[in-house]
Amino acid sequence: MGEQLSPDEKLHLITRNLQEVLGEEKIKQVLSERELKVYWGTATTGKPHVAYFVPMSKIADFLKAGCEVTILFADLHAFLDNMKAPWELLELRVQYYEQVIKAMLESIGVPLDKLKFIKGTDFQLSREYTLDVYRLSSMVTEHDAKKAGAEVVKQVDHPLLSGLLYPGLQALDEEYLKVDAQFGGVDQRKIFTLAEKYLPSLGYAKRSHLMNPMVPGLTGAKMSSSEEESKIDLLDRKEDVKKKLKKAFCEPGNIENNGVLSFVKHVLFPLVGEFSIKRDPKFGGDKTYTDFEEVEKEFGEELIHPGDLKAGVEVALNKLLDPIRKKFESPELRKLSSTAYPDPSKNKGAGKGNPKVAEEDELVPSRLDIRVGKVISVEKVLIHSLIHSFTHYEGDPRRVEPLDPPEGSSPGERVFVEGYETGKPDDKLNPKKKLWEKLQVDLKVSGQCVAQWQDKHLMTKLGHITCKTLKGGNIS
Amino acid sequence: MGEQLSPDEKLHLITRNLQEVLGEEKIKQVLSERELKVYWGTATTGKPHVAYFVPMSKIADFLKAGCEVTILFADLHAFLDNMKAPWELLELRVQYYEQVIKAMLESIGVPLDKLKFIKGTDFQLSREYTLDVYRLSSMVTEHDAKKAGAEVVKQVDHPLLSGLLYPGLQALDEEYLKVDAQFGGVDQRKIFTLAEKYLPSLGYAKRSHLMNPMVPGLTGAKMSSSEEESKIDLLDRKEDVKKKLKKAFCEPGNIENNGVLSFVKHVLFPLVGEFSIKRDPKFGGDKTYTDFEEVEKEFGEELIHPGDLKAGVEVALNKLLDPIRKKFESPELRKLSSTAYPDPSKNKGAGKGNPKVAEEDELVPSRLDIRVGKVISVEKVLIHSLIHSFTHYEGDPRRVEPLDPPEGSSPGERVFVEGYETGKPDDKLNPKKKLWEKLQVDLKVSGQCVAQWQDKHLMTKLGHITCKTLKGGNIS
Repeated sequence: MGEQLSPDEKLHLITRNLQEVLGEEKIKQVLSERELKVYWGTATTGKPHVAYFVPMSKIADFLKAGCEVTILFADLHAFLDNMKAPWELLELRVQYYEQVIKAMLESIGVPLDKLKFIKGTDFQLSREYTLDVYRLSSMVTEHDAKKAGAEVVKQVDHPLLSGLLYPGLQALDEEYLKVDAQFGGVDQRKIFTLAEKYLPSLGYAKRSHLMNPMVPGLTGAKMSSSEEESKIDLLDRKEDVKKKLKKAFCEPGNIENNGVLSFVKHVLFPLVGEFSIKRDPKFGGDKTYTDFEEVEKEFGEELIHPGDLKAGVEVALNKLLDPIRKKFESPELRKLSSTAYPDPSKNKGAGKGNPKVAEEDELVPSRLDIRVGKVISVEKVLIHSLIHSFTHYEGDPRRVEPLDPPEGSSPGERVFVEGYETGKPDDKLNPKKKLWEKLQVDLKVSGQCVAQWQDKHLMTKLGHITCKTLKGGNIS
Repeated sequence: MGEQLSPDEKLHLITRNLQEVLGEEKIKQVLSERELKVYWGTATTGKPHVAYFVPMSKIADFLKAGCEVTILFADLHAFLDNMKAPWELLELRVQYYEQVIKAMLESIGVPLDKLKFIKGTDFQLSREYTLDVYRLSSMVTEHDAKKAGAEVVKQVDHPLLSGLLYPGLQALDEEYLKVDAQFGGVDQRKIFTLAEKYLPSLGYAKRSHLMNPMVPGLTGAKMSSSEEESKIDLLDRKEDVKKKLKKAFCEPGNIENNGVLSFVKHVLFPLVGEFSIKRDPKFGGDKTYTDFEEVEKEFGEELIHPGDLKAGVEVALNKLLDPIRKKFESPELRKLSSTAYPDPSKNKGAGKGNPKVAEEDELVPSRLDIRVGKVISVEKVLIHSLIHSFTHYEGDPRRVEPLDPPEGSSPGERVFVEGYETGKPDDKLNPKKKLWEKLQVDLKVSGQCVAQWQDKHLMTKLGHITCKTLKGGNIS
């Protein structure tokens, strides 16, 4: 593939649907001489979900255009992100990422002979690379490093030093992977410009940069596997896909911030080239679109109903997921999947023989001592003794509601998560372990206003914990 | 040595003359079981001068107390400090430091069998160490890193990222050198407390810290080989020692901020145990002191004249320097000395066969195009077209004076440095090369109010450039 295409056709494939390209002239020049070398990096943290189809559809474009594509698994970053996860587990996650990404690209039907995978730790801890990290830190000001990471590094009150190092590492990766261009979301722009500015100061070539727009998640969340909320896993069963799509935000006529529509644009059209909806003749009947603009226009004019759009996406998505599900039915990949991402609700069988993996399993909600509280005065609410639910609408003021225990509950009664009724709470929360913070990310209010942890209900012996109105709200 | 001493006697030797000790209990505990392991680090940048006798006299104490002492040559830091200096040159400087420090300790008469030397790059670029640097950066906040380096890292308007990394490296060195304690000036205190705070978070033992007071330089400058001003080199001839001591600030009766007196206290007494002055019987006659307090008291009461104090120091210092000078008469060490620190005023013979070393030689003042200017208005002074002299007294307001060209000079006349009359100035100063900044550090006003670069006069064809009153002032 790619060999039959002209340099112009390759350039078109490489740059289509991108929001911005820096250094396009250099890319043209390379394409007139040889195939382009591109890299994309991803930290091997959470389980890749369907939003990964967005960068994959560009990687498919690169491969179709004959590019030599390197996928960097940033395992060092993943390690630093959660230093409690042992390297054995991180290695399994790298393997999982590789298998699942291969499965996605096979499902898409692109040739993989020009695709290679590399781990960050394969080169980022070498003497040569490390010396370059120090050389770079002796040229980059704190201010520039901070600015570069502003959109990517989590912005917190007490930022860690590591956040200032990441942009430089990402710049050096371009040199050490010997690529012509780096691909990423436009949120990486400031890192890319830092790389363009500083690689030449180290005596290395300035690279080109290919930037995808920021695409809203199919089910509403941002493209990030760490936001667990209702994302569709690549191995989800058809029933789960249906259920999660049903919950996806997709307002009639609203073409802005519509994850379902974005998925049609950025995944289905580039990969499949068409999109079909099936519906009763009385609502307009079946229709196949060969042009995204038409889908968008009709949805904007409410000629396509959100339910029909979702149903069309469900069919197309299941077609993409079927080969992946099938591949992961093999005993080896089933085992990889369950060891790389052990189910915390299961007993510790998965981690047997590996005490470090088992340690991860200990993130169980029964370790928290959550109690029913009584609001005496707003100032006197004790942390963790009363939990609140809040939800955050873009631009709206934040709303906060207390959670309601079942009727008849008394202050002091223990709140537990179904399935974890028996665990003994920790005597004291070790602030270094951040147990609360880790468990908290999976706490939310369901669409039925029931408080949940990982889709399991929070309850007292008298029944569920609920809230009045904040469906989908976070609990903190 | 050390074997005959009791743990208490060892502790006394180890801690005497220090300003502060952190973790003394731990040191006592170690001393009750085995010898203490201590490390001291120094960046191998400028040529070590006599101020190095201050830490050396403590290192002598450690060795006398039976300690296992490691001296770390921070060559990675030296490299990052001046990335234009090639590794070949840096390696020569490490060798020079090792030889000169050995010579100093031999001169002092301490056994060297428990002393070892190590280079930073021997372990600081290893995979294991590097991973720990990243682990540490994922725990230390930007704020803490900045605070830790506040007294040691040069404080500038646009601080570099590297300045935030150094404190963490210095903390890790304690673990990788497997020591019980780190020794340094009290200016390192915040780095030491960072190390005490964070090593345990990495699973490593907290180390003790031994802090020397900040001792003013013998001839007035701070203990730092990068401040070239009138410091006494360890290989200076007797005439140079006399000349430089003569210029040293040593006000009658002033026992504060008196580098000469400090040298007596922190070097001569710990090493020699006594101090003698020789003088005409009509001024009090010869006297030998066995107690520093007595010297200080008599100097404070003006019973010792600064000239006599200096003469006594000159004799004692020359006794310390003689064996070093002698050792460096060997052809090997002469060669090491001239290649590690090539004389920029000589032709490029020293760097022959090594173009990179020759490049260093290019730091010649004739590359600056300094001209006589006329002060039209204070706002209109052009950078580098007019040079000013200023000096800075502790606590006083800063005084600034313009430099005066010889009488009869016209604006536009070129200012040159004696010995560099013929060089062609650079057409344009490349700001990245910091040529001006590098040459500027050696510009100063002599005790005779003549402007100098590295002790060579600044002049026009009509004579010397002078200033009215600011003896010893910096020129910028």
